Amino acid sequence: METNPCNNNVNGKSAIPSKVSRKPSQKDTIVNINGVLVGGAEIVVIAGPCAVESREQLFETARSVKAHGAGILRGGAFKPRSSPYNFQGLGEEGLKLLSIISKEIGLPVVTEVMDTRQVEMVASYADMIQIGSRNMQNYPLLKEAGMCKKPVLLKRGMMATIDEFLLAAEYILNQGNDQVILCERGIRTFETSTRNTLDLSAVPMLKRLSHLPVIVDPSHGTGLRWMVPSMSKAAIAVGADGLIMEVHYKPEEAICDGYQSLNLDEFRLLMAGLNKIAKAVGRGISTLKAAHI
Amino acid sequence: METNPCNNNVNGKSAIPSKVSRKPSQKDTIVNINGVLVGGAEIVVIAGPCAVESREQLFETARSVKAHGAGILRGGAFKPRSSPYNFQGLGEEGLKLLSIISKEIGLPVVTEVMDTRQVEMVASYADMIQIGSRNMQNYPLLKEAGMCKKPVLLKRGMMATIDEFLLAAEYILNQGNDQVILCERGIRTFETSTRNTLDLSAVPMLKRLSHLPVIVDPSHGTGLRWMVPSMSKAAIAVGADGLIMEVHYKPEEAICDGYQSLNLDEFRLLMAGLNKIAKAVGRGISTLKAAHI
Amino acid sequence: METNPCNNNVNGKSAIPSKVSRKPSQKDTIVNINGVLVGGAEIVVIAGPCAVESREQLFETARSVKAHGAGILRGGAFKPRSSPYNFQGLGEEGLKLLSIISKEIGLPVVTEVMDTRQVEMVASYADMIQIGSRNMQNYPLLKEAGMCKKPVLLKRGMMATIDEFLLAAEYILNQGNDQVILCERGIRTFETSTRNTLDLSAVPMLKRLSHLPVIVDPSHGTGLRWMVPSMSKAAIAVGADGLIMEVHYKPEEAICDGYQSLNLDEFRLLMAGLNKIAKAVGRGISTLKAAHI
Amino acid sequence: METNPCNNNVNGKSAIPSKVSRKPSQKDTIVNINGVLVGGAEIVVIAGPCAVESREQLFETARSVKAHGAGILRGGAFKPRSSPYNFQGLGEEGLKLLSIISKEIGLPVVTEVMDTRQVEMVASYADMIQIGSRNMQNYPLLKEAGMCKKPVLLKRGMMATIDEFLLAAEYILNQGNDQVILCERGIRTFETSTRNTLDLSAVPMLKRLSHLPVIVDPSHGTGLRWMVPSMSKAAIAVGADGLIMEVHYKPEEAICDGYQSLNLDEFRLLMAGLNKIAKAVGRGISTLKAAHI
Repeated sequence: METNPCNNNVNGKSAIPSKVSRKPSQKDTIVNINGVLVGGAEIVVIAGPCAVESREQLFETARSVKAHGAGILRGGAFKPRSSPYNFQGLGEEGLKLLSIISKEIGLPVVTEVMDTRQVEMVASYADMIQIGSRNMQNYPLLKEAGMCKKPVLLKRGMMATIDEFLLAAEYILNQGNDQVILCERGIRTFETSTRNTLDLSAVPMLKRLSHLPVIVDPSHGTGLRWMVPSMSKAAIAVGADGLIMEVHYKPEEAICDGYQSLNLDEFRLLMAGLNKIAKAVGRGISTLKAAHI
Repeated sequence: METNPCNNNVNGKSAIPSKVSRKPSQKDTIVNINGVLVGGAEIVVIAGPCAVESREQLFETARSVKAHGAGILRGGAFKPRSSPYNFQGLGEEGLKLLSIISKEIGLPVVTEVMDTRQVEMVASYADMIQIGSRNMQNYPLLKEAGMCKKPVLLKRGMMATIDEFLLAAEYILNQGNDQVILCERGIRTFETSTRNTLDLSAVPMLKRLSHLPVIVDPSHGTGLRWMVPSMSKAAIAVGADGLIMEVHYKPEEAICDGYQSLNLDEFRLLMAGLNKIAKAVGRGISTLKAAHI
Repeated sequence: METNPCNNNVNGKSAIPSKVSRKPSQKDTIVNINGVLVGGAEIVVIAGPCAVESREQLFETARSVKAHGAGILRGGAFKPRSSPYNFQGLGEEGLKLLSIISKEIGLPVVTEVMDTRQVEMVASYADMIQIGSRNMQNYPLLKEAGMCKKPVLLKRGMMATIDEFLLAAEYILNQGNDQVILCERGIRTFETSTRNTLDLSAVPMLKRLSHLPVIVDPSHGTGLRWMVPSMSKAAIAVGADGLIMEVHYKPEEAICDGYQSLNLDEFRLLMAGLNKIAKAVGRGISTLKAAHI
Repeated sequence: METNPCNNNVNGKSAIPSKVSRKPSQKDTIVNINGVLVGGAEIVVIAGPCAVESREQLFETARSVKAHGAGILRGGAFKPRSSPYNFQGLGEEGLKLLSIISKEIGLPVVTEVMDTRQVEMVASYADMIQIGSRNMQNYPLLKEAGMCKKPVLLKRGMMATIDEFLLAAEYILNQGNDQVILCERGIRTFETSTRNTLDLSAVPMLKRLSHLPVIVDPSHGTGLRWMVPSMSKAAIAVGADGLIMEVHYKPEEAICDGYQSLNLDEFRLLMAGLNKIAKAVGRGISTLKAAHI
């Protein structure tokens, strides 16, 4: 059989990314999200609702996740939805709420950007911008993110190989921005009992090939609320530098992803369990001292 | 096992797209690309180089594919490449060449757009704009394409289900543009002997579920030049309304995708064979009368 | 990234099968099933019910498929079923019915064998034995089939690469039996709108790499009765040497696979359409002269 | 789109397995392998070479893995190999070595059986019989295993859904043998940097749906020796009842799977790390008191 020259295989010389690759004995890159460090000894948990819905929803959720050890707040203002008839997010109004509550609670905030025309605006409200799974190979967006001054959370495409994922990150670094966090969030397989198949082997593989921090999203990776705690533990055991998960103060009323969002109590219990695993692998959970709210 | 509410399954009522769906006894939509009709009895072949490289390359290729029956010219000016270090296309210069040569030869032209900021510009040079596989779920881009006045060629994402593909098209139609052609171009599977696995069953499935025309890309679908002719025949036998394929006047010198591009002679031979299959299924190849060049 | 030595890639020297491989300018192997030739210019259609249910069912179906051009009869006596509580087939009683009706109607018969202990018995009733998808890597069964004196129809595993498929056939040839037909029957992908994804690119790939005949199973490949005709046409257009499909005299009463079985009238119509495609690719349908029954 | 009745979806009533399913408040089944209990509080590690090669190789490996906490010995005498020209195992001679050394060292032994004709013989030498990935849907073999009096280690097919896996186990239980251990060993996906994609979400899913013990095979699941330790930790964190892994006293000289086998020292280090994770999830490693050899 002929070798297929189309496969951008990292075994092949030409396809090897360069700036994202770990050079011999190169140290881990640490990404600084407004004072919270990802990629060092401490594990960081990013938590919050799928979408920003209201001031109350965001405030109550943010206050609680901070109290229980989250280091960064997440929340979507622009939502990539399969159907044009689904809720598309609050847009700039959502960004404003994120910015205000982030400061009130004292948690840096990450939110997704989908359009090259909005990178600057989103970056002005957020402490870190996210490029979602569906946009992992949206090259103009990657370049724009590479030119912005904020850290970037890059999610693996649901059909992306490890090499393609690293090459997507290379687009960002190549513009001069090396503050990039890689996020495994599940790949698409034949299995339908889970929303995606969370590929935890991607964590040690990415850590070996690259110097960038790697985190895991067990909410999208499984699509099942009850499975988030066990997969979170596995992610830390395998060497992830952090987690990003959906938490909602009233999951049963959530506009989107309620079935995969933890409620506040479930989040509290999870964090206690995670700390034990983190210690077992010689790390800890990075927790900003809980503010007295 | 619990039902996973995350799957946007078209079996589920809520996820059924509406404007792209075929209503009972609804006729096929015919898309008009500057006078060339796709979706009717005649099969249309779109051919040309992967990327616009030079005036000579484009002119020689365009002249020849027209002479042998191509109905539309293809060529990339903005190229989505896995690596930032690969050739990214000639940009607006390439668009100008496409526009000039398209007029000289007398073939409408389709070219890809990747950035919301460039939709208007690309549409001003091209007769049809293409949204590529990697951008199938780039929702701002889909919306922008829906607002432009040119037909849109939408390629299936390499890991997109049929429902997600139709929902992506729905984003375009929902903005008022119903001149959309769906293109199957191979999905990603475990098989590595071909670049992708060309899913020809997608053709009858899409035709059944939707009124939009469906074409097939055997070049990207297989990644192997020698396999393009047989898969092209199969595509027409299964009911495709057209084909889009890469043809280059000197494939061995092509900057990209040379291994999957036909040369001019191979294209000529292929077209002769296709016509027989088209007749066997009661159709023909739509060939503009060859201009005397 | 390190090269993974586990992948039995046919690009690698050591994994290249030898007896199944096509040597330079080697001619196609023609398999002779009791007088019906597969692999030559004529296309052979194998048709019949999923499972043998009764004398009436088998006789009526066999008589009709022969009258409309089928060259070989199919029918299962031992059924591999996902659940132990599903109908497991009539066993030896079914084999006897197949043998009797095959002779009455004048069609050779193929049936599946699942157990090494039954190869000899099944081969004594059938003109060709089938090794099903789930047993493609059942090596003791392959060896046993290699030692029997009947032709073997080997189906591709739903998760098997092209190389693994050829290596499975090599197990049979290596025992001295070169009367092997390869059958593409759909692979498992993320797509759920069809039962499997029929990989038609496997046909030209297998024909190029091997001298063995290749046929296609559109019934299992799609799982949808209405899609069988169009995919059958595509299979012939792409170069298949034959088809195997499920036909039942009363699909709505079939014990298994009724939703993907054609009824007698649908089969008659399909055969007419197939003949046109076969002619378009320079071949014909091999039809034993219809017996006057 | 029509519902596809072919999918044996466990959501569908008819396909729900019964004997393997966990009834409300049903306790975990504990499997007893000659005194070693799998499925209780203690985690059991099964270790040994891919294939039995020689008395020295097996003895040295077995002695060492026992000394460092393995509870059960593994080793293949009949090897399912993709190519007929690869080493096929020592056969009954290998079984005798396994039986002798297992008794000398004091570790129960598990080994694979591939042929219905050999189940009785293999069961006479081994303490537990294994049905491998490629035979997960070899129904005659499953039935035969169900009739034997030894526990059965059933590996998930590399393309099997969770429901198909449970239905395969149902074949064994339905014959009266409920001493079955389920093993996740990696599924086949598009990703090629690892041999398979180890689906750790299968562990909590299987534990929720069934009462049977679940173990994980990180050696085949990753195909990479250096990745075995981190994935082993993750498997225990996610709730696995045990691990099965390849260990060889001289991996660089192993006849098969050397690149994914740990050496004796790597195994020792791994076991120390595993114990910490086991404690963090409230369990321990079941270690027979190291014999003085």
